[in-house]
Amino acid sequence: MRLATLSNGQPDGCLILVSRDACRYLSAVGITNTLQQAIEQWDSVEPALRQLADRLEQGDGDVLDESRLLAPLPRAWQWLDGSAFPQHGELMQKAFNLPPIETDRPLMYQGLSDRFLSGTQDVVLPSEADGIDFEGEFGIITDAVPMGTSAQDALPHIKLVLLINDWSLRAIAPIEMKTGFGWVQAKPACSVAPFAVTPDELGDAWQDGRVHLPLQVHVNDVWFGNPHGGEMAFGFHELVAHAARTRDLVAGTILGSGTVSNANFEEVGSCCVSERRAIEMIEKGEPQTPFLSFGDHVSLGVAGNNRSVFGNINQQIIAANF
Amino acid sequence: MRLATLSNGQPDGCLILVSRDACRYLSAVGITNTLQQAIEQWDSVEPALRQLADRLEQGDGDVLDESRLLAPLPRAWQWLDGSAFPQHGELMQKAFNLPPIETDRPLMYQGLSDRFLSGTQDVVLPSEADGIDFEGEFGIITDAVPMGTSAQDALPHIKLVLLINDWSLRAIAPIEMKTGFGWVQAKPACSVAPFAVTPDELGDAWQDGRVHLPLQVHVNDVWFGNPHGGEMAFGFHELVAHAARTRDLVAGTILGSGTVSNANFEEVGSCCVSERRAIEMIEKGEPQTPFLSFGDHVSLGVAGNNRSVFGNINQQIIAANF
Repeated sequence: MRLATLSNGQPDGCLILVSRDACRYLSAVGITNTLQQAIEQWDSVEPALRQLADRLEQGDGDVLDESRLLAPLPRAWQWLDGSAFPQHGELMQKAFNLPPIETDRPLMYQGLSDRFLSGTQDVVLPSEADGIDFEGEFGIITDAVPMGTSAQDALPHIKLVLLINDWSLRAIAPIEMKTGFGWVQAKPACSVAPFAVTPDELGDAWQDGRVHLPLQVHVNDVWFGNPHGGEMAFGFHELVAHAARTRDLVAGTILGSGTVSNANFEEVGSCCVSERRAIEMIEKGEPQTPFLSFGDHVSLGVAGNNRSVFGNINQQIIAANF
Repeated sequence: MRLATLSNGQPDGCLILVSRDACRYLSAVGITNTLQQAIEQWDSVEPALRQLADRLEQGDGDVLDESRLLAPLPRAWQWLDGSAFPQHGELMQKAFNLPPIETDRPLMYQGLSDRFLSGTQDVVLPSEADGIDFEGEFGIITDAVPMGTSAQDALPHIKLVLLINDWSLRAIAPIEMKTGFGWVQAKPACSVAPFAVTPDELGDAWQDGRVHLPLQVHVNDVWFGNPHGGEMAFGFHELVAHAARTRDLVAGTILGSGTVSNANFEEVGSCCVSERRAIEMIEKGEPQTPFLSFGDHVSLGVAGNNRSVFGNINQQIIAANF
């Protein structure tokens, strides 16, 4: 099943089901109005939603205009972002001569969740001097997860899979990180690709709580990278269990993988400017790729079975108008 | 004005106005249903809410049962907690022989906001081995604050003032802090005292974006501390400006001061066990006060003009039932 949220003037939009070819949709209103409502009562609404999905594959539905789609959850009660790809951490540490982060636990921070940008919305930021960067990553949405849930028991709580661009400000990030308090200014609102898909929709590409598909990144229409999501040190179910160690997770919690990164980065490239700069520092002594400028646009997408699995993120960065 | 949220079976409860003597209330339904709705349209609803407050002082209203009150915002889209009392940081650094946090910026992390416990709700936690602790602090609620708002311009965006207990797990906190990612497991849900008060309600005690009143702390009915809120290195308006540097703040954002702490800690005590333990380590070579146990109860309150300004927090810690 592929779920999406259609703009209707309300903050949470209205829930729709989208056909596999992304050409048609059917409204879920009557079953449940919004994705947040659906995730709060997933087990009771899922059968009716799957019937809509079946009708779509039989040719039913209206013509979909992707530009009218919001983020699947235009706002969420909780966004917890991990950093689960060890290759990314190793490159950053090597380039900046940092000590390795001494932990055998998942890395995770809580981020801004009161708004998620759509895949086509402009990204409004205050200053190019902040070191504007993107982070291509996968994410998941859980239903309500009780405190103390094990990783094994967490897997069925993962109801939907997402494609996310975690916008990051690199001039601020190390200053905030050094305090130990994590990031506030360095992490403005994220963007989310339009389709939230059930794990079964990914077929064999959903394994061990990981998305084994390449994330295609282009900056200003030029290839930037296509690493795949399989090399997470911890699967999403383990990230869920980590987050739920001392709290109940509210239904509609979004968890992120952190920047996708692979051991063969020489071939597959990177999912953020910062990592490419780190590779350049290691190999050439200094970074060569600049951070992003106002007017730049960043595209993320994931192809599976010759289809765009999550729909596309394709956004332009523009200056805040103070 | 003193606002509160009455339990009505809905997640956000219903907004009420409370008399200065905390004996009577009037429902705000008809003007606005919830505190979140009120803060989203503050300027248009404030006059009508103030009329209700006037009627209460003239003797109108129903008898208030504080045990039926939820947190003023039982859930919020954003909770950003500062650490603005330098005395607290200095004691912790001295006791643990840590390097000072090198920053002239406010310290701030984003925390769990999908639920705030009421002042009487049990605090359910998984393990005493996590080092259970409280943090008495002040907080504020803003309306919508545009990105780039200055500290000066932030002051009128502070609509309500709160009393908060930021529950903390001290065995986990340093492990998470060392990663630079901030706290997830170490910061379960906070509790909030029942009354959210407008800054004018504090009279002269609201100065420079700070609450110049002592926060009274008792653990198991024994005095623990009563430091006042005046010694913040940054006022709340400066914390708002810091948070809004790269993001628009959603209406209903809650910002916290961090543990209240004073330079004359010998006399006024502390607002968390961890700080008292730090003082013991410095003065006696080792900590003597244990962290909290299941069954312990913690009370916070603030008196002003011989009244309980925010109502009381008085909660018991109990074990999660896995």
